[in-house]
Amino acid sequence: MKRAGRGVRRALTEALREAVRSGRLTPGTRLPSSRRLAAELGVARNTMAAAYGDLVAEGWLTARAGSGTLVTDTMLTWPALARAAAEPSGELRYDLIPGSPDLTAFPRAAWLKATRRALTAAPDDAFGYGDPRGRSELRAALADHLAQARGVHTSPDHILICAGVSHGLQILGEVLAGRRARSVAVEPYAPDRYRGLLAAASLETLPLPWDPHGTDPVPPEGTDAVLLTPAHQFPLGTTLQRDRRTAVVDWARRTGGLVLDDDYDGEFQFDHQSVGALQGLAPDCVVYLGTASNTLAPGLRLAWMALPPALAEEAVAAKGQIDSCEVLSQLTMAEFITSGAYGRHLRAARRRYRDRRDSLVTALARHAPKVQVTGTSAGLHTVLSLPSGAEQGVLQSAARQGLRVAGLSRYRHARSRHAMPDALVVGYGTPSDAVWPQALSALMGILS
Amino acid sequence: MKRAGRGVRRALTEALREAVRSGRLTPGTRLPSSRRLAAELGVARNTMAAAYGDLVAEGWLTARAGSGTLVTDTMLTWPALARAAAEPSGELRYDLIPGSPDLTAFPRAAWLKATRRALTAAPDDAFGYGDPRGRSELRAALADHLAQARGVHTSPDHILICAGVSHGLQILGEVLAGRRARSVAVEPYAPDRYRGLLAAASLETLPLPWDPHGTDPVPPEGTDAVLLTPAHQFPLGTTLQRDRRTAVVDWARRTGGLVLDDDYDGEFQFDHQSVGALQGLAPDCVVYLGTASNTLAPGLRLAWMALPPALAEEAVAAKGQIDSCEVLSQLTMAEFITSGAYGRHLRAARRRYRDRRDSLVTALARHAPKVQVTGTSAGLHTVLSLPSGAEQGVLQSAARQGLRVAGLSRYRHARSRHAMPDALVVGYGTPSDAVWPQALSALMGILS
Repeated sequence: MKRAGRGVRRALTEALREAVRSGRLTPGTRLPSSRRLAAELGVARNTMAAAYGDLVAEGWLTARAGSGTLVTDTMLTWPALARAAAEPSGELRYDLIPGSPDLTAFPRAAWLKATRRALTAAPDDAFGYGDPRGRSELRAALADHLAQARGVHTSPDHILICAGVSHGLQILGEVLAGRRARSVAVEPYAPDRYRGLLAAASLETLPLPWDPHGTDPVPPEGTDAVLLTPAHQFPLGTTLQRDRRTAVVDWARRTGGLVLDDDYDGEFQFDHQSVGALQGLAPDCVVYLGTASNTLAPGLRLAWMALPPALAEEAVAAKGQIDSCEVLSQLTMAEFITSGAYGRHLRAARRRYRDRRDSLVTALARHAPKVQVTGTSAGLHTVLSLPSGAEQGVLQSAARQGLRVAGLSRYRHARSRHAMPDALVVGYGTPSDAVWPQALSALMGILS
Repeated sequence: MKRAGRGVRRALTEALREAVRSGRLTPGTRLPSSRRLAAELGVARNTMAAAYGDLVAEGWLTARAGSGTLVTDTMLTWPALARAAAEPSGELRYDLIPGSPDLTAFPRAAWLKATRRALTAAPDDAFGYGDPRGRSELRAALADHLAQARGVHTSPDHILICAGVSHGLQILGEVLAGRRARSVAVEPYAPDRYRGLLAAASLETLPLPWDPHGTDPVPPEGTDAVLLTPAHQFPLGTTLQRDRRTAVVDWARRTGGLVLDDDYDGEFQFDHQSVGALQGLAPDCVVYLGTASNTLAPGLRLAWMALPPALAEEAVAAKGQIDSCEVLSQLTMAEFITSGAYGRHLRAARRRYRDRRDSLVTALARHAPKVQVTGTSAGLHTVLSLPSGAEQGVLQSAARQGLRVAGLSRYRHARSRHAMPDALVVGYGTPSDAVWPQALSALMGILS
């Protein structure tokens, strides 16, 4: 039996994985371009590109600006893995890698209380194979909460529960590929992992332009969709301005394109009047993506999409015939929201993270006045600009002190024409309240 | 950009889905063979076959013995969907479709107690992005429990938590395809869904032969793997005999093939000395698959695989870089097992289902002495033989009475040479204790 393209792609990814595992390809090694390697191996170029995409999605490879595709330096990859990998060495003192809230602040007592109520109230059929969209109680609670908190216009019927934003993007990648979409415009700086998930669905990612006001979100003609973090751009920290919101919605209406509104940090806006979700402007052509990973804990594996009605059925089909998400956490989350506990938790979390950001700004003004904080006052991370060429040196010096931070350059789309100045991305949400002052002081030690 | 094979496959599946959704293809319609349709559309045959496989996996199509591939009659598909579809009509009185335990018996109080302990004891990092294999507490608890209860030889390092046996088979399908496997031998009668999941990974499923002792499990030369339910064959209810266990393990050792031991109903053996898992005979070439879906509740989305050490890394990679399973249910399940609550729950459940089976056998002897119960005394379902040609009539008569049962023929592999006599598959585990006597009496009304 002749192997189809998919078999070739699998064989390629496996061969590359094996090469990394065995150490034949060492971390940091630069791979040939997918075009060149495809020519050498006599396989189709898009199959090779898809294989690279799979491996980026899985974290084996990293697409890096200017240097093409590299074997991932595991110390600087997906935060959880990086942390797990660091445990045995015992050298990590402070973790400021963005992407996780303060896990010591998980509201255990309130969550247990909500679990008790949810377990008591659940109808028997809740324990069975569920509606593939997720539990109706949670979809109803979210429709209300998101309308109030984020200006999202949706109905419980068009909400799809998923196991994380990555899972949501995987589903949307399948939906887009099923509609014969070919390309998705993305922000020039964004997590590698998201680009990889889209590439794994055979979608090309096109970097959007960037100017001092932030991302110019209107994609080139012929693009099928655009993925944005309008509330608080990850990692650059800007908020998408009003005229640009209108412009990207106009683009979607004009071309039939789809906007993916990843409402990253949408619940954590500190100083200014909270900006609502882009989805509220055009629920018929914007998908809203939200998650409990940043507001509560990644371990809950709870995220949600509000879908344009015309897309809902395809997205449910792509999720699969049975609900793959655990039901009790869904029922507990529904109870947590409707009882008001989620609102209280969010207010406390907003205070916690605003205080941390404030203390970071104050400390910098005193100890490192040349380092600028960029982006709006929001979220769990911020960007600290560095002198040109300083990024690698600062990262190395931080590593020697047992302080883990991310450099901005690792988030750059390999084909972006825009290169931001050197900078650190500091996740001030990750440490506990007890550890944060010491982590901050260690960071000042490196920057001052 | 030319579309790769995968794009063609997506376009084909979407076109067929749309035809079903729009009603152009009505339930029960027979589709042309994948070979013929591929020729007509000018696409590769294996792409067409993979598209059919996808749609069988998703439940849109059904592969049926003798009649090729049909548009699924939703009334007789995946139990959850069948039930959900039936709710609005209000006509369903008794549900005896196999595939679900008695959901009213979920041990809510004991589960809440375990949740409280788990939430109190959890380290902070449990709430983060976890080990892709699943929580270590649960893997350790399972390694002990499975050794004692099922004779499984494994270590926590080689256990992989997944969100159901379907998720496990999806992972194994990817692993096999990554190793360039082409075919998996399967039992001649088995859930369509499992065949579909393997087909979606471009694996051909080959039906094994059947004789009065049950499945002959030794696959033809050149087969890469074999999927079996050795403890209690689903749906036929036989237990794989000792000499055949040895024979299939010998095959695996001789050829390097893989045995997938789906320990369906392994915890529910009633009369005889409990037969251990096949995996215990050869942990180096058998994958063990177990689940809480039948012992506790499908809504937990908790299942587990014990993997041959040589396979573990590939399976973890196929699962993905982050744990997609909710963490609190994992920690709660670990606590539920180690506290002894799971053992108590299993003993009570065993009594419940044994009593139901006994009452069914007694009622048949009295009211329908010609109907024979086949299979060993185990599990949540049994097979009732019917006079030749009676199956469809009995199903229709059951439906008129608001009684839902499955016919045996729907589980047959389309290419199996063996056709079992007409029979019903009765899931006596599904109703509540309160409803069971009435459901039993309604069943007798149809059979007598």
